[in-house]
Amino acid sequence: MNRIITISRQFGSGGHEIGKRLAARLELPFYDKDILRLVEENSHYSEEYLLENEEQVPSLLNGPYYGSGHTSFYPQISTDKVFFTISHVLKDIAAKGPCVIVGRCADYVLQDFHPLNFFVYASTESKIQRKLQQLKDNGQTLVTSDEMKKQIRYVDKQRAKYYEFYTDKKWGQPSNYQLCLNTTDLDTDKAVDVLLAYLKLIS
Amino acid sequence: MNRIITISRQFGSGGHEIGKRLAARLELPFYDKDILRLVEENSHYSEEYLLENEEQVPSLLNGPYYGSGHTSFYPQISTDKVFFTISHVLKDIAAKGPCVIVGRCADYVLQDFHPLNFFVYASTESKIQRKLQQLKDNGQTLVTSDEMKKQIRYVDKQRAKYYEFYTDKKWGQPSNYQLCLNTTDLDTDKAVDVLLAYLKLIS
Repeated sequence: MNRIITISRQFGSGGHEIGKRLAARLELPFYDKDILRLVEENSHYSEEYLLENEEQVPSLLNGPYYGSGHTSFYPQISTDKVFFTISHVLKDIAAKGPCVIVGRCADYVLQDFHPLNFFVYASTESKIQRKLQQLKDNGQTLVTSDEMKKQIRYVDKQRAKYYEFYTDKKWGQPSNYQLCLNTTDLDTDKAVDVLLAYLKLIS
Repeated sequence: MNRIITISRQFGSGGHEIGKRLAARLELPFYDKDILRLVEENSHYSEEYLLENEEQVPSLLNGPYYGSGHTSFYPQISTDKVFFTISHVLKDIAAKGPCVIVGRCADYVLQDFHPLNFFVYASTESKIQRKLQQLKDNGQTLVTSDEMKKQIRYVDKQRAKYYEFYTDKKWGQPSNYQLCLNTTDLDTDKAVDVLLAYLKLIS
């Protein structure tokens, strides 16, 4: 595979793990939110600050009266700067060669590199079950299905707004991707196999 | 393949031909708008009447003052009856066993049969080129790119409205499908291969 692969994913769809395993199978570098560590090295932002501002939608509600601390005084400027700093680092990474990148609007940011863009999604019920299983596997505090449903809804709304704000395109709209894969009844390895089969057929 | 496969497709995406070839490769019956002939046999509607009313959105603009002839006097009732008649025939077909069905909201109508639903789409430019090539291949009168663009836009809008009216779901929204495939840079046989690979992996 001599192209950059980007994976956009709904929260709880398994898209992150699919990207990770796909990268391993293709023996390509894998980038997810750990990319923020690279951004930290290339900017004056701390990783903590980046985590706080990344994938956040600029909003007046995040302004001085409603937000917390230094990051929210100029919310628009903060989030814009973080977006552009991450984009810059993404382009540096892409310039080095093929890799797999999860999230970060990489399909849009790297459009000049003609990446292959996948969207991974699933039914709400299956996302709830997958996330609850993850909590269990990691020995983390369990939450109710309803609480998890709210969290999924919140994260996906944030991702959609962030994407739409910076790309002027609709998150999860098929036209942004080469292939959209529903993982409702598909386990992670099967999903990776589907993407690998696709990549083999088009190469 | 022991399941029903439905294919929803943008006009000019090659989805119809993909469905046809997929059915041939799987040795399954294939149904597209020829299904209207079956509907004709099972109703008092003529094929001509069905063609006129199918995939049309009920609208007051199709009413007595604006429409033409008998089909438009009670537009809502006409299109509803056609939709329900086609749905009835679709269910009869599905009850007989696995097959490939293109269009006709089959993914929704046949949901109790748990079909595998694919959505095939492409960039506007690639759809224009595909349709112009088809006209050329069939020795039909060529139109300009702009005229074709308008036609594509019109047909897809009609399909979207028809689907949304009868299913309360958004046409082309990934959640309605197991896999969405972009055929912008994919020829028909490769697209069939991708769907076959997917079907093999999940079976």
